[in-house]
Formats: sequence, C-alpha cells, structure tokens
Amino acid sequence: MKVILGVSNRHVHLTEEIYRKLFGDETLNVVKKLRQPGQFASDKFVTIKNGDREIKHVRVLGPLRKYNQVEISRTDSYTLKVKPPVRDSGNIEGSSPITLLNGENRVDLKEGCIIANRHIHISPKELKEYGLENVKKVKIKIEGEKGGILDNVMIRVDENFKYELHLDTDDGNAFNVKTGDEIEIIEMERR
Amino acid sequence: MKVILGVSNRHVHLTEEIYRKLFGDETLNVVKKLRQPGQFASDKFVTIKNGDREIKHVRVLGPLRKYNQVEISRTDSYTLKVKPPVRDSGNIEGSSPITLLNGENRVDLKEGCIIANRHIHISPKELKEYGLENVKKVKIKIEGEKGGILDNVMIRVDENFKYELHLDTDDGNAFNVKTGDEIEIIEMERR
Repeated sequence: MKVILGVSNRHVHLTEEIYRKLFGDETLNVVKKLRQPGQFASDKFVTIKNGDREIKHVRVLGPLRKYNQVEISRTDSYTLKVKPPVRDSGNIEGSSPITLLNGENRVDLKEGCIIANRHIHISPKELKEYGLENVKKVKIKIEGEKGGILDNVMIRVDENFKYELHLDTDDGNAFNVKTGDEIEIIEMERR
Repeated sequence: MKVILGVSNRHVHLTEEIYRKLFGDETLNVVKKLRQPGQFASDKFVTIKNGDREIKHVRVLGPLRKYNQVEISRTDSYTLKVKPPVRDSGNIEGSSPITLLNGENRVDLKEGCIIANRHIHISPKELKEYGLENVKKVKIKIEGEKGGILDNVMIRVDENFKYELHLDTDDGNAFNVKTGDEIEIIEMERR
C-alpha cells in the first residue's frame, strides 16, 4: 500500500491573538493551498529565536488555530539550541519555549516548539477504504541508495484530513525523498 | 553486533596546494583528534559557496590529502543549490563544483562536493574479528520514537582505519542518534 508524501519544512501555527500582536491588522493571505483541506502556506514569515540563536523567514501556515505551535527539525533545534519533544501536532503542553519576531514585534511563547512526529493524515472514510481501521502506527519503506525503513509513523484521523504522509526535512533529506513521492507502507501496528 | 557511531557534520579535506592558496603559510593545527587514527579536526574554517548561496564556518579536517573534497548533507545541498552525488570518500570524479573562501582568498574547485554515503571504517584485522570478511554493505537498526533501519551502509577497509560507523547529520538527526552511540548491525550483504 502506498501513500503520497509531503515533506514539512519548519513552520509556525498561530492563534488570532498572537497573530495580531505580530502582524497587527495585516491580512493572512493564501500563497499556496496545501493537500490537507483548508490548510495553506501564507504570505507571512516570522523569525524564531532562542537566546542569541535565530532562524529567519519561517513561514506562517493558515488558517489561524486555537494554539501556537512552532514545528522544527532536530537540525533546526541544534541551530537554535532548544530541545523540543517529538509530538503530535496540537499536543504542546510542556513543549519548548520559543520567541517569535516580526520586525519590532515580539512574542515570547512559554511552550509550543516541537519536532512533529512522523504521521499520516487520513479521514474516517479513507481509513475504511485503505483498511487502516484500528491501526495506531505503521512502518514505511523507502528504496534507493539512501533507503531504509522508518518506524513509528502515527495514524492521525480527522474528518478534515486527506490521506497523506508527513515527514520533516531531516527524515526527507536523510532518505532523499520529496513532496509528491509515493511511499510504501510495510507494516501496521493495531491499537 | 554493535558499532560505535560518529556523526559527521559538513567538512572539507584539502590538498597542500589548495590549502596554501587559502591559508598561505599558516599551520594546520590539531584541535581534536578523531577516532580514525591520524585524522583530526583542525583550527581552520572555510566558507563554501555556490553562486550567491554560501555556508560559513565549515571545518577543515587534517591531515592534508591527495584530493580536495567537500562533504555536505542533502539539507546543506538545498541551502547551496548544488546537486552532489552520494559517494565514497575519495571518489570525486564528476562530483559537484564548489567554491572555497578564506577571507579574500578564493578557490573554485571543478569537482569535489559530495554527500558521503553511510559507511563503516574497519581495518583488515578488525574485519576478521567481527566476521565481516567479504561483506560489501550492511543494514543498521536504530531504536526509539525516531527509530528504523538504514540500508546501504558500505564497509570500507583500510590498514589505517578503526571500526566506526559514519553517518551524516541528516541521517543522525532523522534518527536522533549522536556520536558515541552504539548502533546495531542487523543484516550483511556479501560481495
């Protein structure tokens, strides 16, 4: 069984409150629709900062959410000298503090910086179609000179999701795969 | 069977000729001895550049060699907009061109930029000790929430080598492993 890959570069999700603190009354515009329904790459960027370390030009994804979340790779975490946990998106309690900057505007988040786990988005309807009911996580296999197997790819089910595998840039670059590649699921672990 | 891991950050090997063009009569000093006998992290750094893209502060490893080689990760290759092949160290024919800078001093290499393949250094004596004679490549297994299996770890034999697994920062960060970790060899492919 195959699944389409999306490689996620570092990005930020913001609440309305924090977005306004950073961008005032500017509109969050759609630059590119993502495969996940309703989700989009916006025209807004922030600098993410920890102490004297920073990464500029980190994209804000839309729409605005009920929580603030900064998703980075472990490579980024060394650049920033932060130690974020590996988490499901939205599970940010006790995750790493991080600072967001847009020019002179600054917000210090007490938590919200994570490394996203490997995961597959899927709707309840697709879950049945693909025979993935009651599957908690899968393993995926990648061919090629930088090939191998990635464990602990979590199955995440929501009415608004569309079947898609998300890896971060560390996983994507280690295995030399790109957004749009078809990746093989080789093993399922049921709940 | 286990092997000690060394994660290789981007680095540069230089010939005497190119070293002199970049650093004049400065001495290449040892900052830290590496596990591979005779090899060391030096006190010298270059900027590696392609067009208007560059990465600063890339360490020169010593001693000087018979070829110039710039080893980067695929993540770095996107930063630099180069498309280096995945190669054994020393196999640089037809690999990517790259520019080296030290202040005003500049060298344009016609080839030499590679992504190093996953590999294990081993001496002929250790090859017998570990039962790895006639093994061309192995697979390694990493446990944990970012675990999995990495294929195509090449066995590289030389009198001057010492048993050690080398992965680049993409592989190391994708699997959350660090220099000094013990990694399991799970499968061997004989020649």
